[in-house]
Amino acid sequence: MRDMLGREDAVSVGEAQRRIAEHVELREPLSIPLPIGDSYGRILGEDIFSPEDLPSFSRSTVDGFAVISSDTFGASESIPAYLTVSQEVFMGRESGFALKKGTVARIPTGGMLPDGADAVVMLEHAQSVNDGLIEILKPAAPGENVISVGEDVRKGDLMLRKGHVLRPQDVAALAGVGMTEVMVFEKPKVSIISTGDEIVSSGNPLQPGQVRDINSFNLAGLILENGGVPVKRGIFRDDYDDIMAVAAASVEESDLVIITGGSSVGTMDMTARVIGNLGVPGVLFHGVTLKPGKPTIGGVVNGVPLFGLPGHPAAVTVCFDLFIKPLLRILAGIDEKEFLKRKVLKARMAKNVSSGIGREEHIRVAVEEREGELWALPILGKSGLIRTLVMADGTVVIPSQARGIEEGETVEVVLF
Amino acid sequence: MRDMLGREDAVSVGEAQRRIAEHVELREPLSIPLPIGDSYGRILGEDIFSPEDLPSFSRSTVDGFAVISSDTFGASESIPAYLTVSQEVFMGRESGFALKKGTVARIPTGGMLPDGADAVVMLEHAQSVNDGLIEILKPAAPGENVISVGEDVRKGDLMLRKGHVLRPQDVAALAGVGMTEVMVFEKPKVSIISTGDEIVSSGNPLQPGQVRDINSFNLAGLILENGGVPVKRGIFRDDYDDIMAVAAASVEESDLVIITGGSSVGTMDMTARVIGNLGVPGVLFHGVTLKPGKPTIGGVVNGVPLFGLPGHPAAVTVCFDLFIKPLLRILAGIDEKEFLKRKVLKARMAKNVSSGIGREEHIRVAVEEREGELWALPILGKSGLIRTLVMADGTVVIPSQARGIEEGETVEVVLF
Repeated sequence: MRDMLGREDAVSVGEAQRRIAEHVELREPLSIPLPIGDSYGRILGEDIFSPEDLPSFSRSTVDGFAVISSDTFGASESIPAYLTVSQEVFMGRESGFALKKGTVARIPTGGMLPDGADAVVMLEHAQSVNDGLIEILKPAAPGENVISVGEDVRKGDLMLRKGHVLRPQDVAALAGVGMTEVMVFEKPKVSIISTGDEIVSSGNPLQPGQVRDINSFNLAGLILENGGVPVKRGIFRDDYDDIMAVAAASVEESDLVIITGGSSVGTMDMTARVIGNLGVPGVLFHGVTLKPGKPTIGGVVNGVPLFGLPGHPAAVTVCFDLFIKPLLRILAGIDEKEFLKRKVLKARMAKNVSSGIGREEHIRVAVEEREGELWALPILGKSGLIRTLVMADGTVVIPSQARGIEEGETVEVVLF
Repeated sequence: MRDMLGREDAVSVGEAQRRIAEHVELREPLSIPLPIGDSYGRILGEDIFSPEDLPSFSRSTVDGFAVISSDTFGASESIPAYLTVSQEVFMGRESGFALKKGTVARIPTGGMLPDGADAVVMLEHAQSVNDGLIEILKPAAPGENVISVGEDVRKGDLMLRKGHVLRPQDVAALAGVGMTEVMVFEKPKVSIISTGDEIVSSGNPLQPGQVRDINSFNLAGLILENGGVPVKRGIFRDDYDDIMAVAAASVEESDLVIITGGSSVGTMDMTARVIGNLGVPGVLFHGVTLKPGKPTIGGVVNGVPLFGLPGHPAAVTVCFDLFIKPLLRILAGIDEKEFLKRKVLKARMAKNVSSGIGREEHIRVAVEEREGELWALPILGKSGLIRTLVMADGTVVIPSQARGIEEGETVEVVLF
């Protein structure tokens, strides 16, 4: 039952949320270019395909000797392979030579593998015999201690999806493949209309009977915290025409509109009248079985959600949390799994992971939902790869006295 | 055992953290004035004592009739009190009259109580007999449906303490007592020195053997997320004098210094040499039993912490979390209980709280630690009081089908 002001029996929180969700129009936000250094926390407005291979050359992951792996086959401490140190690779420079069979080149961590070389022997597994000769004490497999061209990110790979929240490691990955700008979604604009004959702004002297505007400061902070841009429309007296005019302009120019006012029946009815007369469908609920926040009004006009909040500060905070916060994430264009909104979660390990006793190990994991259960998938790969951080949702710590984690074991994932 | 470069056996994460904490000099950050609308999330640099009473006059919390409570004593549905409606209170204006015995004044929610009145009877508990006469069906206790002068915040009350992180409701409370500016701590400056002969910035073309600067973008984002100001000092070749010069300037001008570099033994040794030669105590650890992040170097010079991080992106993220993040909160001047850093926590209810069936109730609670256990103290008080939000750390939800929560029951607190 509903009268012409949209009044009916108070509805439950869930029903109120459902009615708004049903009528809000989901438009993809506009995208704007930003320097990557300003894009932290912003929502990606495009799919990112890597413009380059990362790394663009094969690199050593250790200090040692670049070798042709077949030269080291069968080497051991008792029967070492004897090889000639013919060259040296310098950091940040093209190696500029090709390795000949039977020779090796000194190479630092991060150095570029010379042509012909396909593995690196660690310093610890070689011994100097004389100036130009070394003994290799352990065979090197092809690719050992090497990050090959494109091993981290291959040119053309889909690195990040539209709607992703850019974390520090994601921005780092964009830098790593040479990007300097990125398209991000514009933040949703939220208009705040403060109403009440008794309200004055905090800079002005108080007359008897007046109180200061508190709620617009509470709301502006909550909107900022949740990725929106607060637009304070000002403080309005309880005059239907004035509030109608500013509400109409706000619906035009913003993604969400909040009208805060007194909690008197007259004020709330005027807010309902304004929302009802602005357009369709208008008021969707007027009154929620909620404390504090019972007199809350919710509606949608031309696809834009509007809320009339009672003037009590605690009601404003509760209603923001229940009705506005979830909408803001959607209006921002965020594409995110629900469980990733928490800071810490429990999941079951999807694979055995072993760890050495005596060191604390931080495993990067992606979290996946399978049949209602959360699973943590270890992201394997050298710690020098930025990709492992981009693919991960968080970390699992293996304490230094543990030998590892078994498949199926429940672990705590600290999300990034 | 330690050689002149500060090299010794790798230490545990806890030991590394302890050594840094022991030598970091804790200075109170400088304070700067900010308009309150720009102070969200900042750390309060002063204790705030309220400059005004809030509210500055006694207000009605309902729509109804302002009464002299003694006029209503004994009233009931069968024997109502008959009173004359002599006046009306208008929102935002001084009432400008004194209530006479036997009379009442119409008053809206938020209206100023006239002199003489000490309670308000809700509209629902009164009936119009004729134009100027009403029946009161229920007695009003003194103070009923009234927020009295200073009931929310009393002039001179300590509202917020130095070191508090300003949340939306805290800024709202500042606005409520007429403040327009507030002193906040300056954010800690963190210098990022990128080193490596092979590193070029993302805007430049890559030559063979070169890779782009990834880590400074990861670090800058992590620093921003944790309330610091990243200061990128640039990319330096592995030259002792250059790195020494920029590190010395960074120690002078910032609160924390991070040197990232290759993971080669030579590079890490040079970083250790720089930190060791900058001042005392210099290097405090070189190598941690941690994966990734083993080659990490930590030190303190003139009270300023410095870290040498290996160049692997995953190691940078893990080391930031373990060593830099906790320091940043301290350097920012944050005074906060450890358990408030989480988003959701379990606590035991410190008092019985009842709730009506059929409505979802959101209780504001402060969280306290008593003998190792967390307790949630309900913050009682009218939802129109901003103080209840300022004193609270979070909320507990009583679902609509529950009658309440008993003392000692374990509840989930969602922190603000």
